[in-house]
Amino acid sequence: MTPGTHPLGPILVVSTTNPGKIREIVAILAGVPIEIRTLADFPAVEEPEETGATFAENARLKALYYADALGRPCVAEDSGLEIAALDNLPGVHSARWEGEDYAVKFAKIRERLQERGVETSAARFVCRVALADRGRIVFESEGVIDGTIAAEPRGDQGFGYDPIFFYPPFNRTLGEVPRDEKATVSHRGQAFAALRRYLSRV
Amino acid sequence: MTPGTHPLGPILVVSTTNPGKIREIVAILAGVPIEIRTLADFPAVEEPEETGATFAENARLKALYYADALGRPCVAEDSGLEIAALDNLPGVHSARWEGEDYAVKFAKIRERLQERGVETSAARFVCRVALADRGRIVFESEGVIDGTIAAEPRGDQGFGYDPIFFYPPFNRTLGEVPRDEKATVSHRGQAFAALRRYLSRV
Repeated sequence: MTPGTHPLGPILVVSTTNPGKIREIVAILAGVPIEIRTLADFPAVEEPEETGATFAENARLKALYYADALGRPCVAEDSGLEIAALDNLPGVHSARWEGEDYAVKFAKIRERLQERGVETSAARFVCRVALADRGRIVFESEGVIDGTIAAEPRGDQGFGYDPIFFYPPFNRTLGEVPRDEKATVSHRGQAFAALRRYLSRV
Repeated sequence: MTPGTHPLGPILVVSTTNPGKIREIVAILAGVPIEIRTLADFPAVEEPEETGATFAENARLKALYYADALGRPCVAEDSGLEIAALDNLPGVHSARWEGEDYAVKFAKIRERLQERGVETSAARFVCRVALADRGRIVFESEGVIDGTIAAEPRGDQGFGYDPIFFYPPFNRTLGEVPRDEKATVSHRGQAFAALRRYLSRV
């Protein structure tokens, strides 16, 4: 297939506004037989409220909202960090939890763990992807990566909670892993690898 | 890369004994730059006990067990059906729950739902993949597909619980979907699409 002949049409819009996510997603989808655009090409569209109780609900509502607003197929993702010892917080509230300064967020996580009498905890990143076209969800996928909370933030790669997410198979935090290598194992890499395969075969 | 030059070595063993799973996995991994073998090539190896409490634990223990027993990189999967209204049963016990006859299993699910006063329920298939090499897990992925329990089994494609798993985006049960099409959206398709990408880039 060449761009323009894809059953979804010539263009797929990646409808996320987070620059770190956009970089990862666009790199993973490079070479799929459909032209990838981002919301940067559609600056007039407002963001929807993320009212879902789960990653799946938020991904679906964003994909359906943007597909309707733009009149094109749109893929959305919702993702976050679940810390086992903190009852899976920050979860769907990862981006807003304890403000927007990640140094503060990391300190708060450490405080909360200490309140529970633990130094670390099992944790997982979850990424949920939904693709909407003409009023309905046509594809969904989910990726999960398991790790632990690092004793202190490490690394300046990645973004968000990556520096405090220790990934045992690499013996590093995701903040210490280059983007291409992170994409081979990460929650977002898994979920978008599945989308990539769907787009190449649909 | 050509077979033989892959960092994992020339051969990767898909260590599952379920024929339906093997067919799906081998089809998804076709063309990866490493030779795929199955346990059919290693008939002397006994199966390990699946003592894990989660899909992730079972996938890890099987991958580590077979990698050790065969002295080669091995990928294992654990998967199952979680029915929301039945407290996520049958879950990790999907294969053994209420025996091995799927007609009986389907009837038991219907009975249990009726005991709870419902006709249907949200449900999800989960597939967890783990790749082990030289005593450690080097890659993990997870795939999830959301649907509902069908009023009655439909379709003779797929295997296992597919005929009672209704997938709304296709307006069919997974039992009515050909293997190639199922792989573009299924839990197993998602998880192995991520492995496929990992194997192509590692």
